Amino acid sequence: MEDVSVSPNAQPLSKKAAKKQAKEAEKAALKAEKATKVEQVTEDNDFAKESYGILPLIQSQEKIDRSLVRVSELTKEKANEVVWVRARLHTSRSKGKQCFLVLRQQQFNVQGLVSVSTTISKQMVKFVAGITKESIVDVEGVVQPVDQKIKSCTQQDVEVHLQKVFVVSLANPCLPLQLDDASRPHQEIEEEGRVTVNQDTKLDHRVIDIRTTTNQAIFRLQAGICSLFRNNLISNGFVEIQTPKIISAASEGGANVFTVSYFKTSAYLAQSPQLYKQMCIAGDFEKVFCVGPVFRAEDSNTHRHLTEFVGLDIEMVFNYHYHEVMESIADTLVQIFKGLRDNFQTEIEAVKKQYPAEPFRFLEPTLRLEFQEGIAILRDAGIEIGDEDDLSTPNEKLLGRLVKEKYDTDFYILDKYPLAVRPFYTMPDPNNPRISNSYDMFMRGEEILSGAQRVHDPELLTERARHHGIDLEKIKAYIDSFRYGAPPHAGGGIGLERVTMLYLGLPNIRQTSLFPRDPKRLTP
Amino acid sequence: MEDVSVSPNAQPLSKKAAKKQAKEAEKAALKAEKATKVEQVTEDNDFAKESYGILPLIQSQEKIDRSLVRVSELTKEKANEVVWVRARLHTSRSKGKQCFLVLRQQQFNVQGLVSVSTTISKQMVKFVAGITKESIVDVEGVVQPVDQKIKSCTQQDVEVHLQKVFVVSLANPCLPLQLDDASRPHQEIEEEGRVTVNQDTKLDHRVIDIRTTTNQAIFRLQAGICSLFRNNLISNGFVEIQTPKIISAASEGGANVFTVSYFKTSAYLAQSPQLYKQMCIAGDFEKVFCVGPVFRAEDSNTHRHLTEFVGLDIEMVFNYHYHEVMESIADTLVQIFKGLRDNFQTEIEAVKKQYPAEPFRFLEPTLRLEFQEGIAILRDAGIEIGDEDDLSTPNEKLLGRLVKEKYDTDFYILDKYPLAVRPFYTMPDPNNPRISNSYDMFMRGEEILSGAQRVHDPELLTERARHHGIDLEKIKAYIDSFRYGAPPHAGGGIGLERVTMLYLGLPNIRQTSLFPRDPKRLTP
Repeated sequence: MEDVSVSPNAQPLSKKAAKKQAKEAEKAALKAEKATKVEQVTEDNDFAKESYGILPLIQSQEKIDRSLVRVSELTKEKANEVVWVRARLHTSRSKGKQCFLVLRQQQFNVQGLVSVSTTISKQMVKFVAGITKESIVDVEGVVQPVDQKIKSCTQQDVEVHLQKVFVVSLANPCLPLQLDDASRPHQEIEEEGRVTVNQDTKLDHRVIDIRTTTNQAIFRLQAGICSLFRNNLISNGFVEIQTPKIISAASEGGANVFTVSYFKTSAYLAQSPQLYKQMCIAGDFEKVFCVGPVFRAEDSNTHRHLTEFVGLDIEMVFNYHYHEVMESIADTLVQIFKGLRDNFQTEIEAVKKQYPAEPFRFLEPTLRLEFQEGIAILRDAGIEIGDEDDLSTPNEKLLGRLVKEKYDTDFYILDKYPLAVRPFYTMPDPNNPRISNSYDMFMRGEEILSGAQRVHDPELLTERARHHGIDLEKIKAYIDSFRYGAPPHAGGGIGLERVTMLYLGLPNIRQTSLFPRDPKRLTP
Repeated sequence: MEDVSVSPNAQPLSKKAAKKQAKEAEKAALKAEKATKVEQVTEDNDFAKESYGILPLIQSQEKIDRSLVRVSELTKEKANEVVWVRARLHTSRSKGKQCFLVLRQQQFNVQGLVSVSTTISKQMVKFVAGITKESIVDVEGVVQPVDQKIKSCTQQDVEVHLQKVFVVSLANPCLPLQLDDASRPHQEIEEEGRVTVNQDTKLDHRVIDIRTTTNQAIFRLQAGICSLFRNNLISNGFVEIQTPKIISAASEGGANVFTVSYFKTSAYLAQSPQLYKQMCIAGDFEKVFCVGPVFRAEDSNTHRHLTEFVGLDIEMVFNYHYHEVMESIADTLVQIFKGLRDNFQTEIEAVKKQYPAEPFRFLEPTLRLEFQEGIAILRDAGIEIGDEDDLSTPNEKLLGRLVKEKYDTDFYILDKYPLAVRPFYTMPDPNNPRISNSYDMFMRGEEILSGAQRVHDPELLTERARHHGIDLEKIKAYIDSFRYGAPPHAGGGIGLERVTMLYLGLPNIRQTSLFPRDPKRLTP
């Protein structure tokens, strides 16, 4: 019984251990697999028995000299070639003496076919038909051009006529969610009453959920944002810094901070790299950036708040005016938008299929409005709002829509916020003590960046901290940083997940965090 | 009195606020500055009074149309040009009617000179001589070639004859450490009995300490390591991922983990992105990397342990043998070493001046020794060590020296560690249950990476976790990740600060962390 499910030809095992491992793997597989027909493999009189089966657990027994072809490479150019492919079994459908498979590799898939023949037994077709969805298989087959395009696959011009099929890793037959359900466009769900998967189920089973074409695209694009951000800054002379996340005093004044037990004392998780990137400016690095987690102990259960997110932070010196920095940050974002538009169309299109959205629009140079202009636009639209009120989320969104109508841009800067609504380290406007040298940037009407000129004078900083009721003793090291000569500087912090969400026009920030954290979610 | 120290010509202020700000800045400055002679500026009858002074706090009053020249650009090519420069006053020395200054900008510096003349008054020279070290100044001057090279400056062929000198930000006259002392080579300290600055003082005043040429070089090179790491991986098809740092269960089995209060429950700080990068592999990303903080609540006060450090993590699928991954990681490190050698010689040389070290040597392909070979080398050198003992730090270092002697490399791989000394998720060797498919990589005899093939089979993983006494309930999500088809994979985690330290041959890891965290240090 033992030998049948192992194929010594497919992956010859020179050691005794192979047998033991095969047994173990088979045992494990069978255990998880009672509902399937895999156990029926074990017919000794099967002439095809060496062409299929469950491989022993790959424990690096051998360095096999066999190259695997990528699914994306399976095109007409490979017609009639014999190829080996490792892929997931996306779906299978057996029909008499045939079994059609869809083999998936990330966002690519191809049709496979096993038919009873002189080399392929009934038992083999039955075995293949019994392999559970999402299992990983090694297959050998001949690439065959097809007359009619296979519309359900990305590789539409060929199918693979399989000669050998081995299971590398067998999936549990009960999948907690079906990829096709998780990938279904909203429209189909609403119009056709089709099955969908709710967000919590998706997040609970994120390992399966992130396999969808949509999620593969979202997180590849997100990696692209990071890369574009860094490359743009590095080519402009910025230095990447690493700032500590465990800190001795709350960086933004004490509210909404997570406490950590630290040996015999306690510490906090940094709410931003703010103080540290400024210390690097006082320490002569001139232009710095960092990419890293920031933590907010805010009990906000909204579509756009996370308790842990990734901050893309910038801080730089300027010569005379903080607009030098503000424009440099806006330009960095514009370079990101251009890079995404030019290099990530495949990903953008993939996401759009499930979540339709208008292409992201932006202007060059970036539109800058002053806060009071924004207030005026809102008032024109009938909103009652005070001069020094911060913008509520609905007002932010409304303003975004109004700005889009008027200026045709999804990205703009709102400059010169009231001093009262900004952190203590924000530089007051030189002409009006109620206004500050600070700005937010918006994408599709939602804030993705907050920034400002910082107070680089220790006396004024002390005064501002005191005004905000901050314990001066706790931020002593920070204030002292500016006592030994500090250049004027400004900066900002971008929320990575928000940029991804809003660039793609997605409805929820949990879709753009691989393993989101919110007040109610700590797993997986 | 008020007007004198403000120079309306240098930076004309169109608003009333300027005056107020000037007053504030001056007040603050004077307060910090009682010991200096700056107050003596205030002579109304000084014909040069508009050529020097303390600028009002730069609050972005104006967008001034004046370009500033970089110190590094001050060469013979600019002879006789009038330039504006913003720089730190590194040192000054007055001599009769003259004052020599060294103006510093990051790692570059140039000599400046103010001499009494028809345009420069005695009072002005006195003012300049009184400016505190580390203050930031805006100066206007003429670039003058010199006959004898100025050996104490990086710009040896010119000096700047200053016409105007304005203080942008005045440093406190009592510096907690002197840059020249903090930059002194070990050799000089020992041989000549010169003043040095101990490490804790440096770290306590990191904002000043990181201004030294050595530290500017260390952290620029460290940024280079990150950049080379990522670019190499991205060009090889890796996807950057962001993994959560707040987690619900200790990722490496429960020891040495920091606890965080998380709303009404508690959570932990991730000791590595291990489980999450593996989940991304099970989620079809195939090749992933991440750069981020990792946390270890280890009460280790050694030269090479931090409680928070930056992990450069890699995880990737392989086809048949984990050496595919191990070689790929080693190659990534080799690409980093080459990139540093080819693009960071200036930084390497700068650090070497203070901390002499042999150039870092490596082989291609990377030397791989099996653990038992390492043990044999140690035994040949008279060390008593068991077959399954892990290497102690002294033995690691000794082995590094012996390997260097024998193979002339500072970088090598030690493969096939005893299973007993590796984490539960390490794949056992298929042929010997006491050995594992795991490896460490070493630089100058110290471990910088630990990696392995991971167990991708949920049953074997359960068995291994149970063997290690791990609470299965707590790692359920992790084990479950492998139930829905998981490819064979391997990876590793690199300690960024260790790579920087060992590449440069520095003695202490606190030198390669901007704001180090250890059991006794949480600030700044």
